[in-house]
Formats: sequence, structure tokens, C-alpha cells
Amino acid sequence: MQSMPDLSLYVITDRLLSRGRNHLEVAEKAIAGGATCIQLREKDATTRELFVIAEELRGLTREKGVFFIVNDRLDIALAVGADGVHLGQDDLPLPAARRLIPPEMILGVSAGDLQEARKAQSLGASYLGVGAVFMTGTKADAGEPIGLKTLFSICHGVSIPVVGIGGINAANARQVIEAGAAGVAVISCVVAAPEIASAAREIAGVVKQALASARQKGD
Amino acid sequence: MQSMPDLSLYVITDRLLSRGRNHLEVAEKAIAGGATCIQLREKDATTRELFVIAEELRGLTREKGVFFIVNDRLDIALAVGADGVHLGQDDLPLPAARRLIPPEMILGVSAGDLQEARKAQSLGASYLGVGAVFMTGTKADAGEPIGLKTLFSICHGVSIPVVGIGGINAANARQVIEAGAAGVAVISCVVAAPEIASAAREIAGVVKQALASARQKGD
Repeated sequence: MQSMPDLSLYVITDRLLSRGRNHLEVAEKAIAGGATCIQLREKDATTRELFVIAEELRGLTREKGVFFIVNDRLDIALAVGADGVHLGQDDLPLPAARRLIPPEMILGVSAGDLQEARKAQSLGASYLGVGAVFMTGTKADAGEPIGLKTLFSICHGVSIPVVGIGGINAANARQVIEAGAAGVAVISCVVAAPEIASAAREIAGVVKQALASARQKGD
Repeated sequence: MQSMPDLSLYVITDRLLSRGRNHLEVAEKAIAGGATCIQLREKDATTRELFVIAEELRGLTREKGVFFIVNDRLDIALAVGADGVHLGQDDLPLPAARRLIPPEMILGVSAGDLQEARKAQSLGASYLGVGAVFMTGTKADAGEPIGLKTLFSICHGVSIPVVGIGGINAANARQVIEAGAAGVAVISCVVAAPEIASAAREIAGVVKQALASARQKGD
């Protein structure tokens, strides 16, 4: 069976936002700053190129004890032995993917409202990426942000962990955790930062403290 | 275990060459004209779009008793239960792919010389796509054609079936079979033809006759 990863600081590598730094360099620095999970997202590469990048990230994350998730490409996730695959609306349909995913591999699914979230849970999602929580410049097609209220209703309407995504940074990460999220997924506020490790460290500190407070309240 | 498909007329669907006709329409007409195997090649689609197209082609080919192979994308091949996956130099490395391919699925591999062909065979290829045999306008990066002599040496230097590819049409298909190929892979001469079924029928007739002659000589 799968073990649920620490999703508290979930960094998505995006080469186009990384100021010329490659996936491996971004991931190394993000992990040095406290990332607990790395997702490889790359839409502009051949399968062979993607495999090579994913193998490097798999080596790094295994060495550092950090979870490694591949966006969209189940073939790549399977080929490199990633800990998980993350699927959105443009990716493999969940029932088809679920049949191919080995029991030890986690399945992340994007959801934008409670209905999508519950459906994904019923179809075997291990965790949800929920957003966009705030306004974001990263995804042009992300639409209106769902806001903290909808995030709260989703976090409390499903039994699997939720990671907030979209426009999250050190200034608003606490609110995301207070809404019930198990972690925050970040892209530009970490990978586009001049100092990736420092940017990750700052937000990791906020998330850690917010999770500790949430746990205390929960006791 | 896998059963080796009839690869004698192997039609690769290429949307960009198909004069506005979609993969399904091209495949239907090619099969009506005698295609024995359909390969889906599509580089410009989301995974979800590719899955939908592949499911349609899987339905059609199953109904018609024609083999169905997916280019590059093992995730799609697995998700729709294709008969095989075809891998080139830009796709998953063979050892990684071989581990993920179920025993009933065939693995096609591109090879351009005898060394590549033997290596692919030793790494578990079920058949080889060998070429470009002749000059072709379809693949800008295909380089100088290997010619019939090299094709002959490969066909007689491996123990798995070889399909010739690259610039093959009704006028030269006989030579490809006479060099020892089990079939011909065609793109533009079928999918770009005004009448796809007629074009397929013409080349299917040539291949059938050439294979019958080759078998007689072999007796």
C-alpha cells in the first residue's frame, strides 16, 4: 500500500518560469530550502528528454528523502518509479489511470470545486490539488480563483489530503493551512525567485508553524 | 504471450498530412482498403485528447480485426489496451519500456542500421521499423535513405519481423518485400491520397502478391 507523503511544501518545477535554471537545479535548491515534495511539470520535451529529467529528479529526491510526483505522464512516472502521478482535466481520465497505477503509487488529482473533489476521491485519488486559491499569473486558463471559503468546504468535504494551489506565497500560506489544507503547492514564488532556497525556506517556515497551530487546535 | 500481428500493410495516421480528415476517418478508409495494422502517431495533442482518439481507434480496429499500435506513448497504449507500442530514438529507452510492457503487448522499435536493429532485438523488440528505405518528404529529420541493400542486410541479420518505412508506395513496395521485409509502413502515400481506400487497396495488392512470391521462393 501507498504511504501518504508529506505534502506540506509541494514545489512544482516549471522550466519556463525558472530564469534559465533547469529542473534539477530548481529541485535541489527547493529541497535545500525545505520542499517536502517535488512535482515535475514539463510540457515541451520529447518523451526521452522527459525520461532523462525525471530520472535525475528521482535520484535526487530519493537521496534527499523527498516525495517525487510526475505531472500528467503516467508512462514517465512508471518508468522512473516516481512516488506518484498528478492528473488534471487534460490528462488521462481517472478510471483509466487508476487501473494502471500500482498500489504503492499515489494519485494526485486537480479539483476546482467540491463536486469535482468528491468525484476524484470516489475514483481513487490519494490527494487533491485544489485551486486556484488566489489570483495567479502562472496558469492563464486557471479562471477566477476559488478563494479560501471554497477551499475550506473542500478540505472539510473529503477525507483525503488537500493541497492548495494557485497564487500561494509566504504572505498567504498560513490562511491556506488554516482552511484545512495539508500543504501548499507553489510554483513561481519559489522557482522564479532569485534565491530559490531562501524563498522555499521562508514559505516552509510559515507552513510548518501554521500546521503546528492547526494540530494544537485540533487536539 | 503476444501473437505477432499481420504487419504487411502498416498504415501510420498523421493528422497533419491527412487533408483535414481525422485519425478515425483515415483509419476507417485505410482498413477498408486493406490495411492490416494501424499506428496512431500524434504529437500535438493533450494526453486527454490522445486518449479519446486512441479509444476510438481501439474500438474500430478491434471490430475490424486489425492490429493497433500507439506511437511513443506507452501510457496511452496501456490505457486503451492497444496491441502494441512503437518506440523511436526520442521515446522511452527500451529497457525502461520493456519492464512496463505486459507480455501480450508487442513492442516495435525504429532502427536505421544493422547494429541498432540487433541491439533492439536483444532488448526485447517484437518487430522493427526500418528506414527510411527511400527518400521521403514526411520526416524532415530522417536523413539519407538507407536503401534496399541495407534493408536486406537488416532483414537477414535479425530474427524478428522487419517493416520497411520511408518513401514506400505502390511503385516500390514489391522491392521492399523482396528485400525480406514482412510488410511496408506507409504514411503519405495512403493518408494524403484523395481516395485513401483506393490508395491502400493498390499498395495492399502489390504487397500481397510480393509476399506470396517470396513465400513460394522460400519453399
